[in-house]
Amino acid sequence: MSNHITQPKGFIAGVTAAGIKPSGKDDLVIIASSTLCAAACVTTRNQITGAPVQWIRAILPRGAGRLRGFVINAGCSNVCTGQQGLDDAREMATRVAGWLGCVPSEIAVASTGVIGHPLPMDRIRKGIDAAALTLGKDNDDRIARAILTTDTKPKTAVATFTLRGKEITIAGIAKGSGMIAPSMATMIACITTDAAVSPASLGKLLKQSVHTTFNAVTVDSDTSTSDTVLVLANGAAENATLAPGKPGWNKFTAAMQDVCDQLAKMIADDGEGATRRIEINVTRARTDRDAELAARSIADSPLVKTAVHGADPNWGRIAMAVGKSAAKVVAEKLTITLAGTKVFARGMGVRYSEKAVSKAMQKTPVVIDVDLGQGKGKYTAYTCDLSRDYITINADYTT
Amino acid sequence: MSNHITQPKGFIAGVTAAGIKPSGKDDLVIIASSTLCAAACVTTRNQITGAPVQWIRAILPRGAGRLRGFVINAGCSNVCTGQQGLDDAREMATRVAGWLGCVPSEIAVASTGVIGHPLPMDRIRKGIDAAALTLGKDNDDRIARAILTTDTKPKTAVATFTLRGKEITIAGIAKGSGMIAPSMATMIACITTDAAVSPASLGKLLKQSVHTTFNAVTVDSDTSTSDTVLVLANGAAENATLAPGKPGWNKFTAAMQDVCDQLAKMIADDGEGATRRIEINVTRARTDRDAELAARSIADSPLVKTAVHGADPNWGRIAMAVGKSAAKVVAEKLTITLAGTKVFARGMGVRYSEKAVSKAMQKTPVVIDVDLGQGKGKYTAYTCDLSRDYITINADYTT
Repeated sequence: MSNHITQPKGFIAGVTAAGIKPSGKDDLVIIASSTLCAAACVTTRNQITGAPVQWIRAILPRGAGRLRGFVINAGCSNVCTGQQGLDDAREMATRVAGWLGCVPSEIAVASTGVIGHPLPMDRIRKGIDAAALTLGKDNDDRIARAILTTDTKPKTAVATFTLRGKEITIAGIAKGSGMIAPSMATMIACITTDAAVSPASLGKLLKQSVHTTFNAVTVDSDTSTSDTVLVLANGAAENATLAPGKPGWNKFTAAMQDVCDQLAKMIADDGEGATRRIEINVTRARTDRDAELAARSIADSPLVKTAVHGADPNWGRIAMAVGKSAAKVVAEKLTITLAGTKVFARGMGVRYSEKAVSKAMQKTPVVIDVDLGQGKGKYTAYTCDLSRDYITINADYTT
Repeated sequence: MSNHITQPKGFIAGVTAAGIKPSGKDDLVIIASSTLCAAACVTTRNQITGAPVQWIRAILPRGAGRLRGFVINAGCSNVCTGQQGLDDAREMATRVAGWLGCVPSEIAVASTGVIGHPLPMDRIRKGIDAAALTLGKDNDDRIARAILTTDTKPKTAVATFTLRGKEITIAGIAKGSGMIAPSMATMIACITTDAAVSPASLGKLLKQSVHTTFNAVTVDSDTSTSDTVLVLANGAAENATLAPGKPGWNKFTAAMQDVCDQLAKMIADDGEGATRRIEINVTRARTDRDAELAARSIADSPLVKTAVHGADPNWGRIAMAVGKSAAKVVAEKLTITLAGTKVFARGMGVRYSEKAVSKAMQKTPVVIDVDLGQGKGKYTAYTCDLSRDYITINADYTT
């Protein structure tokens, strides 16, 4: 059985082709719980945000609260659309709320696609009505696909665990960075769970899980104006309410981390033009923050990403990327291991078979281990190789 | 007449094909003054540095001092080569000093090319001797070309001005980012002038000039381990010694800025795979530092660079890149002008002809003006578009 966003008890989903995507494919999704959920969200750090992000921040101050559902459209991002955009996001929530019998502030909204174009509200209104009529029907396979833009594969993940006889499920769907002419799209993820947990605890857990998963992914170092991760927990599993320090919290944390981690890796796998995922493990940094800075510097380096694309064991570029980062680096203490083979230590290259390492670099994921030899800080970043297809996808929209 | 590094009085240059470049082309250059010069340098901010950078820092503590000459080889960067690398850099200086009749600490060294390979010292020794024998001969046209790696064009610039009847000349050569299989190369520039100026004043001026010129260039956001800009001033123009606040300082500053600016733009023009230069002018930022952060964020954005490559007036990507920067940004105060046409203001796109802007974006340079509407800070960054050829140059060295 495949993974479904409605696998946790008490969730339903609806979907339709509203005509927002030029392809005519499914492009509007409603995910809802039959009861009010604890909800938490993490949104983009970009200072320019889309109207849907502004709506979510308004209804979930401090990133947590209570929601009934989530409406997502692909094909138009409703970013840089002024007061009209804000009105449109609110109208989407209001219309979905009408179908679910709740107030508009209990409905989150996300949009992905072109920047700077107003939403085609006629189509959106009809689409919401059509999708709402499919709520609860067997349409799970269409949901994860409907939110994609130029992603090539749907991304779903599920984790389950048992707590004192109650089975608890966490399910998630995500879309990664993709482009729709003529503009930028975004990362959006929705996670559902039937666990009973307070909004505050859920918010804390989501922030912590996102840091090492979704935020550890970089496809091209560009931060979208719409990135949104939303989690809904409706308590239908009837477990004793989860909270930090209480029974089951560690299991819940591990399961949430697992779902986020699976989805994050799928986003890296499916980066624009990607042929392989790259995993960068930085260890023994002075601090965790230093490890993160070094890992991101490597993950964002086009020279490292093109070298991986060419299966070229070019450790000089990795050393360069570590050295240019804001992390404390001493060449003599640095060790670099590439696809399982140590290639750099004590300030110099070490002898190795270029042919063997090149061959190992042709498999996905390509793992880069960087030991800074300074302390106990660690971080893992995910990215993908940089290919000609990235240029093709992003340059060839000449008007 | 073309621009020559020996145009300032009292400078000579030598060149040879030492056999370091696999192509067999000229690859070793000596630039020297007949008398001791005031000298200043700015080197890479990367924490991992090549042996030549370490040598220059040792002989020019605090970035200024007195030098007689500069030896540069292309084809091997002498980076991550341990104690042997340091010994080799010192030996290069010592051998050149022998020919010029000075002490080794008066000779700067720069190397560009493969990381992690030891210098072929047999060839370097013979090359230095051969190049020294050509010092003072008419070989100027070969000098700027010999220091290139995968750059496609030699980069030279000259500025002159008159001070109380004395003509003063500043000349410069540079190489940009290029690759030599299987590793990274570097930005190297040498500037000569016959002005009389103290090392301390020269050091201050160079630092200031580099900030808005060489450091304003980004081809792919990667900071090399060897970047070096060196200026030699021998006083042969016999002007009254220049210093801040004294007569002629402003003219000298403008001329130095001009030479650095010309060379920096040539480096952006000749970025790997570049078809067009992009100039990003950020104005009305809260501070100059904020303007720089915003300009660099745009210049480093692969989505902006691919959009320019496709002549796609995709202002959403520019807004995204500004918003993700650490500069203070308010969408409603932001104005974006692309190739002369205003495309974004007051938080929204403005009406414009996509066709006309796309056509304007097909000419080089493509100018992006970003008005943050916050204060008086400003900065201009230079970069180039991102093409398939960048990937080809950097990925296709499969071992």
